[in-house]
Amino acid sequence: MNKPQHTYFIGIDGGGSKCKAIVTDLAGVILGSGLAGPANPFHGFEQATDSIVEAAKLALADAGLSEIALADVVASAGLAGVNLPSQLVKMQQWCHPFKQFLVTTDLDIACLGAHDGLDGGIIILGTGSCGYSKVADTRFSIGGHGFPQGDKGSGAWIGMQLVTIVLRSLDEVEQPTIMSQKLLDKLHCHDSLEIVEAIAHQPASFFGELAHIAFESAQVGDSLATAIITDGANYIDLLANKLSQQGAVRLSLIGGLSPNLKPYLSPATQELIVPAKQSPEFGSVIYAKQRISQE
Amino acid sequence: MNKPQHTYFIGIDGGGSKCKAIVTDLAGVILGSGLAGPANPFHGFEQATDSIVEAAKLALADAGLSEIALADVVASAGLAGVNLPSQLVKMQQWCHPFKQFLVTTDLDIACLGAHDGLDGGIIILGTGSCGYSKVADTRFSIGGHGFPQGDKGSGAWIGMQLVTIVLRSLDEVEQPTIMSQKLLDKLHCHDSLEIVEAIAHQPASFFGELAHIAFESAQVGDSLATAIITDGANYIDLLANKLSQQGAVRLSLIGGLSPNLKPYLSPATQELIVPAKQSPEFGSVIYAKQRISQE
Repeated sequence: MNKPQHTYFIGIDGGGSKCKAIVTDLAGVILGSGLAGPANPFHGFEQATDSIVEAAKLALADAGLSEIALADVVASAGLAGVNLPSQLVKMQQWCHPFKQFLVTTDLDIACLGAHDGLDGGIIILGTGSCGYSKVADTRFSIGGHGFPQGDKGSGAWIGMQLVTIVLRSLDEVEQPTIMSQKLLDKLHCHDSLEIVEAIAHQPASFFGELAHIAFESAQVGDSLATAIITDGANYIDLLANKLSQQGAVRLSLIGGLSPNLKPYLSPATQELIVPAKQSPEFGSVIYAKQRISQE
Repeated sequence: MNKPQHTYFIGIDGGGSKCKAIVTDLAGVILGSGLAGPANPFHGFEQATDSIVEAAKLALADAGLSEIALADVVASAGLAGVNLPSQLVKMQQWCHPFKQFLVTTDLDIACLGAHDGLDGGIIILGTGSCGYSKVADTRFSIGGHGFPQGDKGSGAWIGMQLVTIVLRSLDEVEQPTIMSQKLLDKLHCHDSLEIVEAIAHQPASFFGELAHIAFESAQVGDSLATAIITDGANYIDLLANKLSQQGAVRLSLIGGLSPNLKPYLSPATQELIVPAKQSPEFGSVIYAKQRISQE
């Protein structure tokens, strides 16, 4: 008797701050899920591969399938950072523990999931930011470029902007802002020098976790916080416009910052927005099935 | 016969991209100088102490004093980064090879040197930026805060700004700029992805070395380059105004970016500017003599 060739799929979504995994059966029914740490190989290859394995094991355990070996399942991952050719090659050459390991970009699986295989675009709004569309087999990406030089409008970008503004404000070369006290409290600091020490050498995810300070401050009328968010949102509008020019008639916002930033986007952008139909990690499963069916 | 207690002084100016040393005799006559690598302990303690020792040895060799042991000379260093209490303590606890090792901030020695002991202020415009004044025993510093969150108007800040703008311009969400081709050429890159890989994990000094691209582009009318430089210069004007409010009636610009940025400063700032009388490394020697005379 032959066992079926692929009984379970593990779909993985790996980003700058966390790694999500689901396990599905052959029919696409989600049986369990797992969550682990950062999985952007560009920010650390070992951390990324550790997170992928951990999330996969947690998903199997959550599904009551702990007895299934990783060597018996197909895993498919969409990862931040593998838009860089060198990182894609590194991940493809990874000596992984799975039966088969497929890798594509986080954007590709998010778009596949969001529109359940249909044409459309997405804008990632999490620790990083990026736009992506797939229209009639043309894949297009815009933005991203990493932290701190790119990813405008993202959580990390907003966090870094507010740190910059707070340090100037504490120097009194910028107007007062309620973000100052909120940041000092959050970092358990008393002054600028302590802030500089607290933020030194911190990764993008650290700054992403500061972004809520800007949104909370903007909501109570802080003009500097509002200016940061509006600047970021205007950039996201530019990305949306480019995706629309590529022929994307629907856009989904993906990532933890989406609910916060959405109200600041232009009416033109908001009209294009539709909720994602499936999660990025489910998009990873769709990707695996498409790839395997082509083999 | 007793040898004189202090025959030679080594004065050191350690910054984010290089470390300068001079050796003087008791009368303050400069006998030789040496140049080594970065010496900001916050960006690397071992690198900083290595650079200090190397610059000191080179200065002694340049003075024809190679036979003098480091253990026989007093060294005094003004360093970037030791405005952070933790870094100052680390440097004070350094198991150094000198007879005596004194350390203060890069700002303190630059101000001591620039006005030869008189009251006044300085603005550092190199890899980093910062304002500092000493008026009637009151020492005041403003700005700095490190890269990338602070140091606005500095070489590293200008370099990072132009990278950010070029990446957006190559995405066509920003107008074209001649900085794009200049940056691609400088980094031997063909596109945005290669730029992102080339700049990843690079230190502030790397970005400082890109700043000339903005100045060259502004000189031939590039409006985005001019906007970056003007934004930086306006911030430096704010620092100058704060130093003036502290009672500084003369300001010296210190650092490699000063000649480039000076023409963009306001008339009010320019009126306060006087050339530095002595170098920061000579200010280190002044500092050593003052400290030893107080012992």
